Amino acid sequence: MAISIAIDVHGGDHGISITVPAALAALAANPDLSLILVGQQDMLAAELARHNNKYPDRLSIQHASEIVGMEESPSAAMRGKKDSSMRVAINLVKEGRASACVSAGNTGALMATARFVLKTLSGIKRPAIISAIPTMHGHVHFLDLGANVDSSAEVLQLFGVMGSIFVQANEKIDSPKVGLLNIGHEDVKGNETVKAAAELLKNSPVNYVGFVEGDDIFTTDLDVIACDGFVGNVSLKTMEGLAQMITSTMKEEFNRNILTKLSGFLAMPVIKALRNRLDNRRYNGAILLGLRGTVIKSHGSADIFAYSQAINEGYRAVQNQVPEMIEKVLSATDLSNKTKN
Amino acid sequence: MAISIAIDVHGGDHGISITVPAALAALAANPDLSLILVGQQDMLAAELARHNNKYPDRLSIQHASEIVGMEESPSAAMRGKKDSSMRVAINLVKEGRASACVSAGNTGALMATARFVLKTLSGIKRPAIISAIPTMHGHVHFLDLGANVDSSAEVLQLFGVMGSIFVQANEKIDSPKVGLLNIGHEDVKGNETVKAAAELLKNSPVNYVGFVEGDDIFTTDLDVIACDGFVGNVSLKTMEGLAQMITSTMKEEFNRNILTKLSGFLAMPVIKALRNRLDNRRYNGAILLGLRGTVIKSHGSADIFAYSQAINEGYRAVQNQVPEMIEKVLSATDLSNKTKN
Repeated sequence: MAISIAIDVHGGDHGISITVPAALAALAANPDLSLILVGQQDMLAAELARHNNKYPDRLSIQHASEIVGMEESPSAAMRGKKDSSMRVAINLVKEGRASACVSAGNTGALMATARFVLKTLSGIKRPAIISAIPTMHGHVHFLDLGANVDSSAEVLQLFGVMGSIFVQANEKIDSPKVGLLNIGHEDVKGNETVKAAAELLKNSPVNYVGFVEGDDIFTTDLDVIACDGFVGNVSLKTMEGLAQMITSTMKEEFNRNILTKLSGFLAMPVIKALRNRLDNRRYNGAILLGLRGTVIKSHGSADIFAYSQAINEGYRAVQNQVPEMIEKVLSATDLSNKTKN
Repeated sequence: MAISIAIDVHGGDHGISITVPAALAALAANPDLSLILVGQQDMLAAELARHNNKYPDRLSIQHASEIVGMEESPSAAMRGKKDSSMRVAINLVKEGRASACVSAGNTGALMATARFVLKTLSGIKRPAIISAIPTMHGHVHFLDLGANVDSSAEVLQLFGVMGSIFVQANEKIDSPKVGLLNIGHEDVKGNETVKAAAELLKNSPVNYVGFVEGDDIFTTDLDVIACDGFVGNVSLKTMEGLAQMITSTMKEEFNRNILTKLSGFLAMPVIKALRNRLDNRRYNGAILLGLRGTVIKSHGSADIFAYSQAINEGYRAVQNQVPEMIEKVLSATDLSNKTKN
């Protein structure tokens, strides 16, 4: 199946210097993928000329004159920049010219524009952001990572169900194990919302396993962990911040003097192996679940490898018909009515 | 000033094999500290006989016949075990025979028993758990770490104020910088509660700086970060879990073969320096703020060094009259009325 994906080339901290070579890498990896690079035509043509483009027949340019800033308010971006690379990329999905779009841009603007242009699936108020994160045993899918705050028990239930369908479709796992993030394992622990969500998930078409705590994220054999977006975002950013602190402290210590530098040189194979195992760039590409279409959010600071992973993630989600699967399961249950408001 | 602290010797994953030698270490470090070891007399006498007790005049034993289990429900522990080492240690604070107590036991039971026996300060419904955590620039005090869920804006404000008083008293910082944990830096980000709390803190007797995100925790120059206990607990446990995963992955990689083992041996000074800088055992000893007395919660898995740090933390809090300072500031403002319910 030929799959076409639109790329918001100006999104992210680095723009086209990352998104264009990453697009070429994704084309190399996926022979039936076509990409539409959405952005300022002259800049794009100049950047493309700097690379050896082996796939001219699978790569096209769609001009868009504006750029959404990383700190711009979602409503200003929506109202004021109708010809932004972000908006035009999403429009291509709406018009059926692309099956998905990828952006490393402003999360709030991407979320708001995607909701406005593509609309959510029946009964879903706001999409949820899902991403895989590395664990001791591989990875776990974690949602919501920041789109929804003050989620009700019904919305938490919906996250569990959508996460389960996503993993089932995208990873070919028969009965994904689903947990709820809490501050204790026992039934009596946590706030009223999470307790009520647990009861709802026990009676949902998912393999609900129970509560997990923050430290369980990395040791669990679960496939999906659901939580409110405020909590999920804080947990995800806590991971990013701590990993960053450990990495830079390690660098400082290995660079302290000639002896520590030598020991760092000798330990390089181990450091590289460690970095590979804990490398969250492999999992770059969070999906906005619950939309009528596939929208992938790349980390703003993604490098070429990470950004190409986000494109691959979009490719897989389209191939595995994630939005269609979610719509099918939700319409077969009464979940979509319950979470309307 | 002579300070007496009661130790719940049976609390924690390891009990007296940790708490007794840690008590002796704390006595060595603080010449005007006395300790009351609370627990089963025969076991305690036998354990003490295994050590060289140089401080018989500053160490006494208070018998308690029962032990609160780590997984026991707080209400069962409260109602059923009136002669537990935890309860008796808290009673000693109530009776004025100790100025503080330290326990590595069941957090829920400790919280419930401390509230019941000691009572909270006027207008405070539940104490908040505060602890320092290591950052790039030293450390930051973080609260609430799990005692309060669904905190209102007024309660978040109270956390900010109590955290500020704590740091002012305990660390001699004139005007501690206080931030609120959120999922964005801008005023419009986050849920309604955190936005309302920000407005309240702007009009409070603290140096309120603004919102911080999960990754800012480790790079910030703030002194206090306040958040709801659900969020704080998830963030703290996320740190613990990720640090554990990185440590065990590093061990695995250095133990892979003879060459990696050799490089690990050569890198040992760097690994040790790294471990020291990131060592959260230094910060063991979370304080229950808002009680009429000083109660310190040690991590359940604390080793001798970490547990002795928790005792030192209690010593400092008593010395710096933390509960008295909080009561004084709260009664001079209208905060205590607002958070009554």
